Amino acid sequence: MNMTDISREQDADHRLAAALAESFIGDVMTAVGLPASDAAKVARLMTEADLTGADAHGIFRLPQYVRRIRAGGVNTRPQISVEQTAAATALVDGDNGMGHLVVSRAAETAIALARAAGVAWVGVRRSNHAGTAGLYAAMPVAHGMIGLYGAVANANHMAVWGGSELLLGTNPLGIAAPSGQGPVVLDMATTVVSYGTVKKYALAGREMPEGWLVDTQTGGPLTDPKRSAEGLLLPIGGYKGSGLALMLGLLGGVLNGAAFGRDVIDFNYNQDGAANTGHFMAAIDVKRFVPLASFVAQTDRHLADLRASKRLPGVDQIRLPGDRRRECRIERLRDGIPLPAALLAQLDRLAAELGVRALRARPV
Amino acid sequence: MNMTDISREQDADHRLAAALAESFIGDVMTAVGLPASDAAKVARLMTEADLTGADAHGIFRLPQYVRRIRAGGVNTRPQISVEQTAAATALVDGDNGMGHLVVSRAAETAIALARAAGVAWVGVRRSNHAGTAGLYAAMPVAHGMIGLYGAVANANHMAVWGGSELLLGTNPLGIAAPSGQGPVVLDMATTVVSYGTVKKYALAGREMPEGWLVDTQTGGPLTDPKRSAEGLLLPIGGYKGSGLALMLGLLGGVLNGAAFGRDVIDFNYNQDGAANTGHFMAAIDVKRFVPLASFVAQTDRHLADLRASKRLPGVDQIRLPGDRRRECRIERLRDGIPLPAALLAQLDRLAAELGVRALRARPV
Repeated sequence: MNMTDISREQDADHRLAAALAESFIGDVMTAVGLPASDAAKVARLMTEADLTGADAHGIFRLPQYVRRIRAGGVNTRPQISVEQTAAATALVDGDNGMGHLVVSRAAETAIALARAAGVAWVGVRRSNHAGTAGLYAAMPVAHGMIGLYGAVANANHMAVWGGSELLLGTNPLGIAAPSGQGPVVLDMATTVVSYGTVKKYALAGREMPEGWLVDTQTGGPLTDPKRSAEGLLLPIGGYKGSGLALMLGLLGGVLNGAAFGRDVIDFNYNQDGAANTGHFMAAIDVKRFVPLASFVAQTDRHLADLRASKRLPGVDQIRLPGDRRRECRIERLRDGIPLPAALLAQLDRLAAELGVRALRARPV
Repeated sequence: MNMTDISREQDADHRLAAALAESFIGDVMTAVGLPASDAAKVARLMTEADLTGADAHGIFRLPQYVRRIRAGGVNTRPQISVEQTAAATALVDGDNGMGHLVVSRAAETAIALARAAGVAWVGVRRSNHAGTAGLYAAMPVAHGMIGLYGAVANANHMAVWGGSELLLGTNPLGIAAPSGQGPVVLDMATTVVSYGTVKKYALAGREMPEGWLVDTQTGGPLTDPKRSAEGLLLPIGGYKGSGLALMLGLLGGVLNGAAFGRDVIDFNYNQDGAANTGHFMAAIDVKRFVPLASFVAQTDRHLADLRASKRLPGVDQIRLPGDRRRECRIERLRDGIPLPAALLAQLDRLAAELGVRALRARPV
């Protein structure tokens, strides 16, 4: 049942204590020019992504972020502005700063506005890659609210349904709600798998199942991950996932004057261009509908029911949105964040280049 | 590319003028006890579903609605109440009235609140089946707004990912935005296909492709539509669609004190029980983010770009969310709504039972 069966755990040569990851990321961000408080905030959010199992959105991204910052593609001293445009809406202009800073401001704004107005919708323009959707969707939950987050992805790896040109991204959706065990968090891309999973299969020399990529030339399945550049990621549910990616693009991009479609630059290759990444963040205050305690009690009852329900043959355990995230956080806080040797070597080189103390040289 | 390749057009023995459909539905609803203005509203919305190609949500549903009304399962004289709970939120109690009346009240409320507050989120409890998601999601578009709609389906045809018990519905999501050609409308269930499509394959004696249903006993694919009762509908994107159905269930059901999970009654079999159907309806006022004209211009540019993009081999035309809906509406307004002979016969019996003039006896 698990599509990402080549997990980082299997190729984890090292385990990195969360506090160490956070201090290292913070030092790197300071070294490339972020103010100390901003560097600390980015470090905390990236480490949280690693702790909650979003391996493609934590310290793994650091070398890429640094490349873009040093090439002038990201503003290290942004004046992030928040314009409240109505009682329950705001537009955040990220001034091309790190996405983590911009989207967390949007989340804080949404929470504050929703406290007064019951719900808030905050659009974001001129931002950058911000990491995993679940991180932001979950922010309102601590305030007794439901969070919604969506974004235009920072590269187009998908075509519109029927098309063969890379004009749509994996545009992610995050939805999080309170429960007795912590946030129930859905964090999903609109493609069957992420491009990161394809890269993992390529590294492992494994054939991919049919249904992940389609061959641009033939329209048939593409299963050799080394040929991924000749293919397109497939959306979930065919035309449905394609449509969802499009609508998330309108909500995250076009509505906020941010990039979508042909205007999206591929941040893997374009280092110095402003991405004009768009996102949206909404918060819904539960108590304006039902008392928070009864929402939590009813949600817990339903989740318990689903968890205890009869299983298909071969299924050991039913997992619900947010379960892996929660378990991962406990395990990784205790045992550290799994780190492949190749990534550690990359981080060592980065440290040397920037004159930052290497991970291995830090006291644990 | 089209999953529903057995369309109603193919088995359409008759074509029914939209005005005739609407007057017939209105008369039937009046005959079973709805006030004239409510009957007219339900008739208009059901006909609109037929016009826009949502064949499973228009006049096809009339016999079922009448059965539930006559069995006492639906209140024909509801006191629908709208409680505004904050500047941008409201809770609608449908008093067990027809879903169409309840959800359109919710949409009107969302539009009015969003005009003042920029965005509005309206929860609905104690409602009933309301037809197609796109119908309601599109309502704010005429007001320069983006619409979001979600609901807990009126029967559980899906299990949670890994499970084999029918505890989740096809919980639909609708998102609609303005464009130069009219609303861009995503209207999707969280399952790969609807139960209606399975029924159509059974009627046609056709084998279904793998990936639509899974066999409850073996966990393998189920492709014989006659055995559908032994299977489960599969969610789009595996655990993603299951997670999305769950989150829509929390937003549409639990947040509003409405039914979800084991509390959902199957309205195909239970005629006299109150369904306590939950929905949500949100409206986002475009002009609080960018001027409406520039949203429309940018959306049009992107849609044109996607439409004109290179196609996969064998694809004649790229279709975007809302295209089929728009074309269908033009074609059916001109040529009438396709009606299979079996459905017409059913409607004739209904007319006779209720003392309503039969469709065939009405002047065109």
